[in-house]
Amino acid sequence: MFIIGERINGMFRSVARAIRDRDKDAIVDLARKQVSAGASALDLNTGPTGDDPAEVMTWLVQTVQDAVDVPLSLDSPKPAVIAAGLRACRGYAVINSTTGAAEKLDALLPLAVEFNAGLIGLTIDERGIPRNAQARAEIALTIVARAMEAGLPTDRLYLDPIVLPVSAAQAQGPEALGAIPSFRALCEPSPHIMVGLSNVSQGAPNRSLINRTFLTMAMAMGLDGAILDPLDQELMDALRTASVLLNREIYCDNYLQVRTA
Amino acid sequence: MFIIGERINGMFRSVARAIRDRDKDAIVDLARKQVSAGASALDLNTGPTGDDPAEVMTWLVQTVQDAVDVPLSLDSPKPAVIAAGLRACRGYAVINSTTGAAEKLDALLPLAVEFNAGLIGLTIDERGIPRNAQARAEIALTIVARAMEAGLPTDRLYLDPIVLPVSAAQAQGPEALGAIPSFRALCEPSPHIMVGLSNVSQGAPNRSLINRTFLTMAMAMGLDGAILDPLDQELMDALRTASVLLNREIYCDNYLQVRTA
Repeated sequence: MFIIGERINGMFRSVARAIRDRDKDAIVDLARKQVSAGASALDLNTGPTGDDPAEVMTWLVQTVQDAVDVPLSLDSPKPAVIAAGLRACRGYAVINSTTGAAEKLDALLPLAVEFNAGLIGLTIDERGIPRNAQARAEIALTIVARAMEAGLPTDRLYLDPIVLPVSAAQAQGPEALGAIPSFRALCEPSPHIMVGLSNVSQGAPNRSLINRTFLTMAMAMGLDGAILDPLDQELMDALRTASVLLNREIYCDNYLQVRTA
Repeated sequence: MFIIGERINGMFRSVARAIRDRDKDAIVDLARKQVSAGASALDLNTGPTGDDPAEVMTWLVQTVQDAVDVPLSLDSPKPAVIAAGLRACRGYAVINSTTGAAEKLDALLPLAVEFNAGLIGLTIDERGIPRNAQARAEIALTIVARAMEAGLPTDRLYLDPIVLPVSAAQAQGPEALGAIPSFRALCEPSPHIMVGLSNVSQGAPNRSLINRTFLTMAMAMGLDGAILDPLDQELMDALRTASVLLNREIYCDNYLQVRTA
């Protein structure tokens, strides 16, 4: 599983404060904790900031990559902010995210190609969130076709079937799950499939239970990545158990204690 | 979900004692607790007993059906013991279980038809446990074809893709999961698909975690029944959360507290 830790996000108050004060130690601490808990990569999101967001993104990239050696997910609605992050990033970066909308693809595909980056593709477009699995697959196909035209290898695409809060859009759960196998079959090499997990439990009690249950179900359907909170121990236990049950990770009696290299 | 409670089984020492002493209260207590925890049906297994197992099965059926009004799963390797249970049972019974072996099908299909019972079909046969999803689907097809010939409606079949202990046969996990969608498509009306859940964690630490993770993954693939321990609260919470996420049960903020009617 490609696990992108979601915690370095200016939407969290403590991160917003660390960004405002340019408190490197607080950001580095959050980076190290997530990697130690099993994150394969770290999402960086400036959040709403009074400063220039491109400058903040550059500072986040520099601060984090000086402390940990993992890929970085550059998370911004603004292509200029992502471009600033890409220029600062020494290692593999993932652009978070494009949609199937032409304007987004036009802005972000050239950046992904230029910087040898990955690209998360949300299966939404100008018309909004698709109603069912089939509509999700159609947008996924648009993203895949545009990536191939642009020369982005399809195994650097991370397609996201769009998970909505179960408390608000319950019928969309099986549609998002059902879309996963169809994404897998779109091209060769197969794209990766990931979700922004915590959205499923927005506004619900029992958030961790809902998150980990949805994650293991999506993994059974073929999910191979997620943006999530690696500091949620029960979530990570469920993830590792699912990986073992899918024969993606070797079983041993203490597999929960063994950290992958 | 068709949830068959597994606890009335003479393999458990306390149940063996209750059977030996014909302690109705102990059996009734276990029946009521499981139904109250959410079991839709109860498995009855005499276990190894010094007494006549057909007589013990009859006593179990009578004792349980006098206390709770749910279907009973008659669990024995011996057709004569199952037949005794069927004769005693006033309501819907499920035969647990046939395999794809001709001898088993010859003995149990006529009983299922005669007593309007359900039939659990394990996808193993004379050659043993199949190696992969495809071999499981072939045995499933044999069972379905024989059921149709015998006049058993296919929605009274409960096909089991055979779950092996992850600690001993890890590669079989994805094969069992992968078989589920193919079973669903075998006939119209579609057969039910269930597993004997606790087998997946035999010999492993963290049994409850492994059980509930596998269950939710199998539900994502289309599982609609399981023999399990309904007194495992974390398992039942995961099951209900998966049902909600699959839009099979209505979401409300306190769905974990709401018992289905």
